[in-house]
Amino acid sequence: MNSEATEERVLDAVQQRRQLVNDALDEDVPMAEPERLYEATRYLLQAGGKRLRPTVTLLTAEALADVEPLSEEYRSFPGVDGTTVDVMAAAVSIEVIQSFTLIHDDIMDDDDLRRGVPAVHKEYDTETAILAGDTLYAKAFELMTDTGADPANGLEAVRLLATTCTKICEGQALDVEFERRTEVVPEEYLDMVELKTAVLYGAATATAAVLMGADDETVDALYRYGIDSGCAFQIQDDVLDLTVPSEKLGKQRGSDLIEDKETLITLHARQQGVDVDGLVGADTVDGVTEAEIDAAVAELDEVGSIDYARETAQELTDRAKRHLEVLPDNEAHSLLEDIADYLITRGY
Amino acid sequence: MNSEATEERVLDAVQQRRQLVNDALDEDVPMAEPERLYEATRYLLQAGGKRLRPTVTLLTAEALADVEPLSEEYRSFPGVDGTTVDVMAAAVSIEVIQSFTLIHDDIMDDDDLRRGVPAVHKEYDTETAILAGDTLYAKAFELMTDTGADPANGLEAVRLLATTCTKICEGQALDVEFERRTEVVPEEYLDMVELKTAVLYGAATATAAVLMGADDETVDALYRYGIDSGCAFQIQDDVLDLTVPSEKLGKQRGSDLIEDKETLITLHARQQGVDVDGLVGADTVDGVTEAEIDAAVAELDEVGSIDYARETAQELTDRAKRHLEVLPDNEAHSLLEDIADYLITRGY
Repeated sequence: MNSEATEERVLDAVQQRRQLVNDALDEDVPMAEPERLYEATRYLLQAGGKRLRPTVTLLTAEALADVEPLSEEYRSFPGVDGTTVDVMAAAVSIEVIQSFTLIHDDIMDDDDLRRGVPAVHKEYDTETAILAGDTLYAKAFELMTDTGADPANGLEAVRLLATTCTKICEGQALDVEFERRTEVVPEEYLDMVELKTAVLYGAATATAAVLMGADDETVDALYRYGIDSGCAFQIQDDVLDLTVPSEKLGKQRGSDLIEDKETLITLHARQQGVDVDGLVGADTVDGVTEAEIDAAVAELDEVGSIDYARETAQELTDRAKRHLEVLPDNEAHSLLEDIADYLITRGY
Repeated sequence: MNSEATEERVLDAVQQRRQLVNDALDEDVPMAEPERLYEATRYLLQAGGKRLRPTVTLLTAEALADVEPLSEEYRSFPGVDGTTVDVMAAAVSIEVIQSFTLIHDDIMDDDDLRRGVPAVHKEYDTETAILAGDTLYAKAFELMTDTGADPANGLEAVRLLATTCTKICEGQALDVEFERRTEVVPEEYLDMVELKTAVLYGAATATAAVLMGADDETVDALYRYGIDSGCAFQIQDDVLDLTVPSEKLGKQRGSDLIEDKETLITLHARQQGVDVDGLVGADTVDGVTEAEIDAAVAELDEVGSIDYARETAQELTDRAKRHLEVLPDNEAHSLLEDIADYLITRGY
């Protein structure tokens, strides 16, 4: 199937579940007192988002149960062990964790915008943003205890969520550390991306399997699918930052270079002897010209760094799809393959 | 028993368990990579602390199991349902949550010192402190999934921890909100204290009961013991701030008045028509005289506000001890009564 058709199938699948996920988010993270805290807590959740991670959780459940997509109620979904599981609560829990990390990351990076609106610490204040993140953190764990799964599986899902959160913190700490070090090698970068970004994709898939009572081999394979496709997703982000026109990207092309942010591409280029720090002189988006970015991208392309990133992402995606072989051959399985492809073929 | 003897018994009980708790903290929150993150994560845990909450958890377990204090291994403790439970992991989990909230609170309040050392965001930086708190948050949940209890009880303990964390966030948000409002009434203040401070005491006691398989009535009574004695603890803090000499308190006496921090005492005084805002003119500790504080305290005493706080704390403590009647009559039970007394008789 060509990539336009894949993209359309993926966006359809996401679109079909987005409203269900949004309704569940509204229901599972309701307004409460104190009002200002809960407004801030719900602010980013309501600002939008593709809901890719919860979609992956729901599709994993459908693939495992071998049911027609959208044919079963997500709130009372048939487990493979005869139990009934609220897989939507698990999907929402994952999205809530994602939202908490974005709020705290934006404070740490002092980013002004998120999803086209002011970041929570800008719209409210830093104190409220810290607390809003902490509240979402707690809510995510509340939700994960409330899926109605067999208690041993419920406890295992909570454990997976907790270790995932620990890893996300480690990944964010490494990301900060790498900004202060120059001798980072591509392998270290991939380890960081796995921790900071990919483990939550791993949790999004594996959690459904754990709660539904799938065997360890299945859980592990689905986790690896999430990890590999999550890493590929981040690498594609790095490629897009250099190759997509600014107007399509929604931000200045080459912003990673301007902000001296290391990526798989720059780290590879350093190993090829490129003076990465000298590629773009400007330190701010305003001070850069398109010609300067063009020249920088040409030099990175010349030494094969962009191809290296693309190939790495492709290898990870191929591996991700092979992990799905533990699943029955069905529509949801096929959609999970499409999502892995989409993560590296998407144009922005 | 007089209060000196009570205090000695309590401090002995805490002292006997402190090293065990400290060893478990070191074991359960070990050094790992990235180094700087884990140093910051362990920094406040290693700075000391009485370990009152974990002590309460361990004593609750001993009272429930009706065993001689310190006679059973906390790592493989006999449940009331025939299971074996790592109650130390639960005790450590509670202390880790306490530590996470202190780190984030100190950022929000921009407090410089904690436990006699620089606050984490001062010793490291705000980014690292946010992440260190987030890491402890995850670790606490990891630990609570790892007690070896019956899975249904383990899941219930995680749920209690999660709802406790939500409430702590709500309490902290109310505390911040109250600083911007003047028409707070004592009842609202007590609700805030219950959320911000007391629920973690409630979790410290109830968690042991949940994990050990105690019945709902017992769990609920022990939770109420923690809530009532935790509220009394905070009110006593407010009383001590006005009545204990600065050199014994370790900070300026009357600092709550100087910083315009509302307490049960000031809110009661407002209801009696006292111009609380005019009691102390200075806005900083340096600008105040002892005579000014003396006069302010005399005025609060005159209208009965200090007695009102003392009586409220005493009523809460009496009620807390009555909740303990669900426990067998044994040494650990008696120590939990002593702790409730100690929380409001302690001199600082």
